[in-house]
Amino acid sequence: MSFMQSLRQAWARSGSLLCVGLDPEPARFPAHLRERPDAVFAFCAAIVDATADLVCAFKPQIAHFAALRAEDALERLIAHIHDAHPGVPVILDAKRGDIGSTARHYASEAFERYRADAVTLNPYLGRDSVEPFLERADKGAILLCRTSNPGGADFQALDCGGEPLYLRVAETIARDWNAHGNCALVVGATWPEELGKVRARVGTMPLLVPGIGAQGGDVAAVLRHGLDADGNGLIISASRAVLYAGDGEDFAAAAREAARTLREAIAAGR
Amino acid sequence: MSFMQSLRQAWARSGSLLCVGLDPEPARFPAHLRERPDAVFAFCAAIVDATADLVCAFKPQIAHFAALRAEDALERLIAHIHDAHPGVPVILDAKRGDIGSTARHYASEAFERYRADAVTLNPYLGRDSVEPFLERADKGAILLCRTSNPGGADFQALDCGGEPLYLRVAETIARDWNAHGNCALVVGATWPEELGKVRARVGTMPLLVPGIGAQGGDVAAVLRHGLDADGNGLIISASRAVLYAGDGEDFAAAAREAARTLREAIAAGR
Repeated sequence: MSFMQSLRQAWARSGSLLCVGLDPEPARFPAHLRERPDAVFAFCAAIVDATADLVCAFKPQIAHFAALRAEDALERLIAHIHDAHPGVPVILDAKRGDIGSTARHYASEAFERYRADAVTLNPYLGRDSVEPFLERADKGAILLCRTSNPGGADFQALDCGGEPLYLRVAETIARDWNAHGNCALVVGATWPEELGKVRARVGTMPLLVPGIGAQGGDVAAVLRHGLDADGNGLIISASRAVLYAGDGEDFAAAAREAARTLREAIAAGR
Repeated sequence: MSFMQSLRQAWARSGSLLCVGLDPEPARFPAHLRERPDAVFAFCAAIVDATADLVCAFKPQIAHFAALRAEDALERLIAHIHDAHPGVPVILDAKRGDIGSTARHYASEAFERYRADAVTLNPYLGRDSVEPFLERADKGAILLCRTSNPGGADFQALDCGGEPLYLRVAETIARDWNAHGNCALVVGATWPEELGKVRARVGTMPLLVPGIGAQGGDVAAVLRHGLDADGNGLIISASRAVLYAGDGEDFAAAAREAARTLREAIAAGR
């Protein structure tokens, strides 16, 4: 099944637009896990098992694993999601982008090595830099458009012939890059009006929306501006607010409770 | 010693603006190496040892290692360069870019884990996304500006208030991001006139110039447009044209000969 099919089925099955981001930081792990040699895998797998029925996707962030030399834990974690929770898509948050020959190696890293269903990508290098991802009709190519951080405006908001760069990016991707219907865009929850402008350009293209929870984005505003005509279209991602909801032996139950609260806050606004 | 100091010393010592990119592709390795369990390290280390006196820097490309599960070989390779060829700076070509908390993990990956002296970065997410790199005065932050690939124009050439995006990027970085004097820019050899426009904005800021060799960039035009007022300022990178110059047991000697030819072609045009 393609990423887009499994995403749509996951939306329907879970009734949830919530995506849990998996950003392991060992210093914040519960004490009883911290000394285990497989702490990164054990922590993330426990979060996954506690929240899988509440989410439409999981999103491991690769830098958190790479900085710890924990590529092996990331491989095992994604394999575990596929095995234990089949049908829940895995978005590898890697923000890759490089020229042709190298882009193929990044695609191989994401799809062959890690078995991700989709990957986040940076569009600055242009279409040929992401072609090895676009041509994989079964996989999702989720391109940065308007990011949630304060500095996102430095270039993304520059006026390019009467409209901001991020809208030119959105329109170019929707018009020229999406022949296989496998593109999505990243738009931060911290800019709900800009989310609405992107939605107006891209029809039902899914939007990955980080920035609720720890970054303070407003769920109601995200839904008002971001939902598509079918009342779906959003992958609303929270990481720290779920992962580190508790720091005791019951951390997974605390994470489940935080995920359930977010899921219900989203459901209430739909 | 900081990256910028070691780069300037390497320019002076080697008399070379050439940087050899380390992009291992096992299918192109000489037959006698291909079956060795440490083929990736052995191949790259042999290239390094055969060319170290001819270059101003080495530039390993991380995707080529990651797609092969060869992070360990990359760590060993960079350690080998530091040990066997002290003073030759190592640029980790990773094109990273992510928001604050994650950017710190990418910086840790590049500088603590891999011990790189500099890293390539994507500016699309804005200043705060690269702040953990900028604040490391001892390390180099080499930001994408005008890339060598055909699709580079898709967004980089968009008119932003009377000038193309890549020049706005160059100017913003030179003016606002370079407080520690540790920034450099990537400008492809395939666009020598645009290289000249960037040079006119950024003074003596170093420019990393890929695209000669296999991609066909014109060395004389690169020098004419890209040299700084001191006759330096360029890190001219070639990968495949050096790495795969030979495919027999004498591959390292063939790589040395290819590097020497490129170095002399560059020297002739200065």
